[in-house]
Amino acid sequence: MLSERQETILNIVKEQSPITGQHIAAQLHVTRAALRSDLAILTMLGLIDARPKLGYFFTGNKEKDLLARIITNIRVESCLSQPVIVGEHTSAYDAVIAMFTEDVGTVFVGTDNILAGVVSRKDLLKTALGNNDLKALPVRMVMTPSSKLIYVEPQEQALVAAQRLMEYEVDCLPVVHVLDRDEEDRKELQIVGRISKTNITRLFVECGLGRRS
Amino acid sequence: MLSERQETILNIVKEQSPITGQHIAAQLHVTRAALRSDLAILTMLGLIDARPKLGYFFTGNKEKDLLARIITNIRVESCLSQPVIVGEHTSAYDAVIAMFTEDVGTVFVGTDNILAGVVSRKDLLKTALGNNDLKALPVRMVMTPSSKLIYVEPQEQALVAAQRLMEYEVDCLPVVHVLDRDEEDRKELQIVGRISKTNITRLFVECGLGRRS
Repeated sequence: MLSERQETILNIVKEQSPITGQHIAAQLHVTRAALRSDLAILTMLGLIDARPKLGYFFTGNKEKDLLARIITNIRVESCLSQPVIVGEHTSAYDAVIAMFTEDVGTVFVGTDNILAGVVSRKDLLKTALGNNDLKALPVRMVMTPSSKLIYVEPQEQALVAAQRLMEYEVDCLPVVHVLDRDEEDRKELQIVGRISKTNITRLFVECGLGRRS
Repeated sequence: MLSERQETILNIVKEQSPITGQHIAAQLHVTRAALRSDLAILTMLGLIDARPKLGYFFTGNKEKDLLARIITNIRVESCLSQPVIVGEHTSAYDAVIAMFTEDVGTVFVGTDNILAGVVSRKDLLKTALGNNDLKALPVRMVMTPSSKLIYVEPQEQALVAAQRLMEYEVDCLPVVHVLDRDEEDRKELQIVGRISKTNITRLFVECGLGRRS
C-alpha cells in the first residue's frame, strides 16, 4: 500500500518524532521539496501528524483500526449454520446419534423451532461417564435450559458472537429471534441457526484470504 | 481513513469507470483543479487508476488486501495454548478426567513430550457409547495415532492452522517441532503446544478489537 520510501519515512518519524521535514530529508539525502508529496500522503492517511514549529509526529497504527472496521461489519446472519434440533422427549442416546449423524458438536432441543435448551458433546460425555442409561434418559434432563442460555441475534456482529463464545466458554451459540413473552412472562426464542467456533474459524480464514470486506 | 469527498469520488469511479476527471468534477460541482489532490491520494492508495485518454478506473478493494496482510503476519507461536498430555498407558477413563479437569476438548498422548497420538471429546463419546469399560481401555486404543495426525509447526501462519482445522474437520491441532527420524525412519514430533478453534476465535476477537496488527 505504501511505497518503499513512504515506509522509510514512516519508520524515521516513528523512531525520532517529533522530527522536522528538513531532518527527514537530510537522512534520505533528498531535498525537502522531493518529500512533499510523500509527507502529504502519510499525513492524509492519518499515519503522521504535522505540528507547527515541532515537526512530524507518529500518530499510531491506522491499519489496526481498518482491520477492526472490516471485522465489525460482519453480521451473524452472514455466517451462521443450519441448526440441528431434536424434540424434548428424545433420549440422550438419540441426541448423541443426531450429533454424530449431523456431525455437529451441539444439538438444540425444542418444539416448533422454539428453543427449550441446548446439549453439547461435553454434557453428553459427562452423562455417559456417570454410568447413566442414555437410552432411558430424556435429553431435557441433560440439556442447559433456555432460561440459562446465552444466545445471539442474527443482526448482531459476528464479533459479538465470538466474544460471547469466549466469555461463556461454549463452542456454539443458538442464533434466535426473540419473540414476545409467553403467558408466564418468559421470553420465547425462535431458533434461526447456530454459530460456533467453527464458523468463526471459517470467517478468520476468509478474512485472511481476502474474501471478506 | 478517506475523507467524505474522497469516498464520494471513489463511489463515482466505482460505478461509472472509466470516467474523466472533468466528468467527476462536473458531478461534484467543483473545478477539475479542486479535485487534483483527492484524485492523487486515491491513485497513490491504489484504489483508482488513471489511463491516458480514457480516465479513471476503479482498481479493487485494497482494504481486503490489507486485512489479509495483517492476518497472514500472525504466527502460530504467538497464539498457541499449553498442551495437556497423558501417558500411553493411561486409561480412556483417566483421559476423560484429564479433559474435564483441564477443561480442554482434546488431549495429547505421549511420553517425554514425543507425540504418540491425539484423543478428542468426540472419540471418547463414541467409545463411551459403545458400552466399553473406559477404565479397562487404554487410551492408545482410542486415540488417532501420530502417523495419521495433522499438525502444525510454531513458525507457520495462524491462518494455515485455521485452514487445516477447517479442512480436516478437527477442533484442535498439536503444535510440534519435527525432529530427526527415529531408527524406524518415522518422524518424531515434539509437542510444544496446541492450537484450537478457541485460539482462532480469540484471534478473531483481538483483530476485531484492533489489538493485533
